[in-house]
Amino acid sequence: MVARYERIADELRDDILTGVHPVGSQLPTEAELAARYLAARGTVRQAIAMLVTEGLVGSRQGARRIVLGRARSQSFAELHSFAQWARANGYRYGGQVITQRRRAASSVEVARLGTDEVLDVLRLRTLEGEPVLLERTVYASWVAAAVEELAPDCESVTEALYDSIGLVFAYGEHLIDAVSAGARDARLLGVRRGSPLLRQRRITTTHEGRPVEWSDDRYRAGSVVFSIRNSIDANPLVRQAGDLRFGA
Amino acid sequence: MVARYERIADELRDDILTGVHPVGSQLPTEAELAARYLAARGTVRQAIAMLVTEGLVGSRQGARRIVLGRARSQSFAELHSFAQWARANGYRYGGQVITQRRRAASSVEVARLGTDEVLDVLRLRTLEGEPVLLERTVYASWVAAAVEELAPDCESVTEALYDSIGLVFAYGEHLIDAVSAGARDARLLGVRRGSPLLRQRRITTTHEGRPVEWSDDRYRAGSVVFSIRNSIDANPLVRQAGDLRFGA
Repeated sequence: MVARYERIADELRDDILTGVHPVGSQLPTEAELAARYLAARGTVRQAIAMLVTEGLVGSRQGARRIVLGRARSQSFAELHSFAQWARANGYRYGGQVITQRRRAASSVEVARLGTDEVLDVLRLRTLEGEPVLLERTVYASWVAAAVEELAPDCESVTEALYDSIGLVFAYGEHLIDAVSAGARDARLLGVRRGSPLLRQRRITTTHEGRPVEWSDDRYRAGSVVFSIRNSIDANPLVRQAGDLRFGA
Repeated sequence: MVARYERIADELRDDILTGVHPVGSQLPTEAELAARYLAARGTVRQAIAMLVTEGLVGSRQGARRIVLGRARSQSFAELHSFAQWARANGYRYGGQVITQRRRAASSVEVARLGTDEVLDVLRLRTLEGEPVLLERTVYASWVAAAVEELAPDCESVTEALYDSIGLVFAYGEHLIDAVSAGARDARLLGVRRGSPLLRQRRITTTHEGRPVEWSDDRYRAGSVVFSIRNSIDANPLVRQAGDLRFGA
């Protein structure tokens, strides 16, 4: 059972993420929100307190609060790593390698990454101390040694690889869908087996188009929302039919 | 009967769409592809010629060609229209209104859409005869009459509204996450209750930034994948779209 104030916080969060309450604008007053949601002012106050904690809404200035950000939504206008995005939005974040091993590439991986050997890494990422993301990343062999040098709790793999070997993750191709949590996903993410996960598969390349990694990333439902802004003029979002995509 | 070169073109197109051959990467040489597909080089050459015509692959640079992109997939049509996207990709598609009613806008909807009355429509969309998408769309009152005029099995609401009242869905703000199917979602989409669904909430506006609709769209897992391409460089068109989006 979700508390009333949590439902109100959800609605307000949606409205901030979609720009109904744009960044920099004033949030309606508690009295106005209480009228809008047909709720007691104390309930609205609890909802707002959640958003303040999340960094979406600022402290009071007179009767109103300012909308600060679009936290917990990952914009796709630019390629950002999890760590870069989390830090830009003021979140505490962390990571931990669960397993890591070199192995021969499958023929599909040879086609994707162009190397006969790969480094296979399973990482758990946290946001505000909570496990939110499971990354299964397969690295091309030419970056394997540099990845193996990283600390198991390295917070930003992207930045560490830039520092150590000057690697720039320049282009990303992302496939986004929903899947059920298997037994291992569920255990590591702290959810029930069968729970919905937001899956992002991606291939990342250098500026020269050289593939660096293929990754299967799974987010706990409710932890992160992807946001995409587009127009009839510029369209970073393309739909693909899943069933038909692999059809012969 | 599909010709051999067309089947190879299909496979290559799939590999480009799924990122096996990422944008900017080099396509394997004709000789390499001939070996991979156990086909004559002339057959591979015909397949590649199809992809060049489609704009997916560039002209030769030495022995290789560069993967250019997904020209067909990036037309304006896919931005908001399930039907136009499906047609552009050669899929059979359909739609059916399940419920439709005018009602007073909630105060949240007044903030989102700017009208006191809304038209609330639940539509089921099909792909290749299978239910794949449940759209819960709330329209601003100024488009309600035009939407009510549409046939219940209207295949493309976007096109029909452009034809009838000249409406252009110009900008969209999308939130993408994963949710569990409730009882009704599960029944209409033909999945088990609790199954993962890919949810896309969106607000769509005209060129002038006037909100047209708020929609909660839920895709059956495995039916459709969203694909997004991005880079570390900002896309100025996307930013411009954002600046213009709400106009105010």
